[in-house]
Amino acid sequence: MPLLSDIGEDALVTRLIAGLPCEASSVRVAAGDDCAEVLAPLPGQSLLLKTDVLVEDVHFTRAMPPELVGHKALARAISDIGAMGGLPQHGLVTLVLPGDVEVAWLESLYAGLRRCAGAYGVSIVGGETSRGRQLMVNVALTGWVETGRAVLRSGGQVGDAVLVTGWLGGSFASGRHLSFEPRVHEARWLATNAEIHAMMDLSDGLGSDLPRLARASGCEASVEATLLPCHTGCTPEQAWSDGEDYELLLAVPMSSLATLQAAWTARFPHLALSCIGQLVAPGTGSLPAFARQGGWDHFAR
Amino acid sequence: MPLLSDIGEDALVTRLIAGLPCEASSVRVAAGDDCAEVLAPLPGQSLLLKTDVLVEDVHFTRAMPPELVGHKALARAISDIGAMGGLPQHGLVTLVLPGDVEVAWLESLYAGLRRCAGAYGVSIVGGETSRGRQLMVNVALTGWVETGRAVLRSGGQVGDAVLVTGWLGGSFASGRHLSFEPRVHEARWLATNAEIHAMMDLSDGLGSDLPRLARASGCEASVEATLLPCHTGCTPEQAWSDGEDYELLLAVPMSSLATLQAAWTARFPHLALSCIGQLVAPGTGSLPAFARQGGWDHFAR
Repeated sequence: MPLLSDIGEDALVTRLIAGLPCEASSVRVAAGDDCAEVLAPLPGQSLLLKTDVLVEDVHFTRAMPPELVGHKALARAISDIGAMGGLPQHGLVTLVLPGDVEVAWLESLYAGLRRCAGAYGVSIVGGETSRGRQLMVNVALTGWVETGRAVLRSGGQVGDAVLVTGWLGGSFASGRHLSFEPRVHEARWLATNAEIHAMMDLSDGLGSDLPRLARASGCEASVEATLLPCHTGCTPEQAWSDGEDYELLLAVPMSSLATLQAAWTARFPHLALSCIGQLVAPGTGSLPAFARQGGWDHFAR
Repeated sequence: MPLLSDIGEDALVTRLIAGLPCEASSVRVAAGDDCAEVLAPLPGQSLLLKTDVLVEDVHFTRAMPPELVGHKALARAISDIGAMGGLPQHGLVTLVLPGDVEVAWLESLYAGLRRCAGAYGVSIVGGETSRGRQLMVNVALTGWVETGRAVLRSGGQVGDAVLVTGWLGGSFASGRHLSFEPRVHEARWLATNAEIHAMMDLSDGLGSDLPRLARASGCEASVEATLLPCHTGCTPEQAWSDGEDYELLLAVPMSSLATLQAAWTARFPHLALSCIGQLVAPGTGSLPAFARQGGWDHFAR
């Protein structure tokens, strides 16, 4: 099996960019030049920008299926574009690679990236490679959203219902952190069909992310542990703390809750939309007892 | 001196995003949400996309001044936007960080990023942090260019004069690889005032980059070693092979060479624009004797 150090940089790039999904109508210059050149958003739309990194032994290991690592690398960024109510468009991939990586491993990584890109309408239009001691995949992704319609974290109001899609917990142990489907269609439906005050995706875990949404909205949160939608076999504490769920967290007016949940169930009958509590005034929040530690902090000792 | 592991991720991000240059008129949502939201290019303009990574012990060491490492991280991407004839606009920064990095080092890195961004009209609108064993700074950058006016690598023609700006060689040894100024103004002037068939920036070195431009244009190159503009104290071989020059490499019609060089000297009297050879038909190229090894390959053994 040839290693990266056997074939060199230019040959690797030639292999990886072959067959990249690239919607010709919006891409003027794809991988291979100094930059990519793509069409601007349509009139009335703004540009969304996101960058997201996977680091070996932090977000994945080389023993995991490389197709799924590639899927995850792009799906995480798509999830963020979706959580703003936008549609993903053009991606760039940066690889930092030890020389001992098998070329076949990288080609499988790219196969996963390509499949995910195709499924969500993303064109991969370029990227970069560098050597390094620790394998790293960074995705930079653009999206389009109607100007004035992006759903931020900061729009939550005191009294809003706090909802999450799907089920939480056990993502890393189950392998779901590799194979999840980003909620871009669901988020787009929510942004279009409901009055969403605030929304974000759950990457670091409810315990880290809910306080961020509440703080950005000038609120605190009250959450009931028994209301957390737990994956089978998971405790509420795991649902709170495990992270990597890539579900949506949103705040909606309490008055619209029943109507929204009925419409949601009709549209997405196989995906839960659970009310787990509400936003409250600063100083009055109440979180489950196990919430003391919060969720994931990359740098905490 | 506090370390990253002492203060944690949220506190780090709060410190780093304070005071980021952000041109309010084009930025609707800056750092702190799932994505950044920025204005689309003006009508008649396309979007340029670039990603570029600096890896510790490959592109910099922690003993180097962190302000200059931050400058380099952004200036490299600006150089690529410039080499397409575009103007840089919005940047995202991904940091992969060992826990033992000093917070002050990162703040200085960001000071360098901020100063470079301010000097070139770039708004830093977001980013991401992750832990890792090897320090890594990735910049994703957008630019705008008039649709149909981007200067590619692939437009060179047989008979074109091959030119480079400035002087080459010795960049790493001299520290210029950290402090260089990207040739965005010069590239913009060239794209606007001259008939440029092809252009790229010199990052991996003339020995790697010139064959790429020639190949993309369906040509080979003939270069005369004695014509290479060498930095003081550098040999033509160093000018060919050292890399990290961040000068412009361009192909122009031979018939326009004299006029272009006269106009260039009037506009940029302190920067050389040297003709080093020409593009020729495949199979007829001739390179200096020391060109056998080409330039920099990240993965060559």
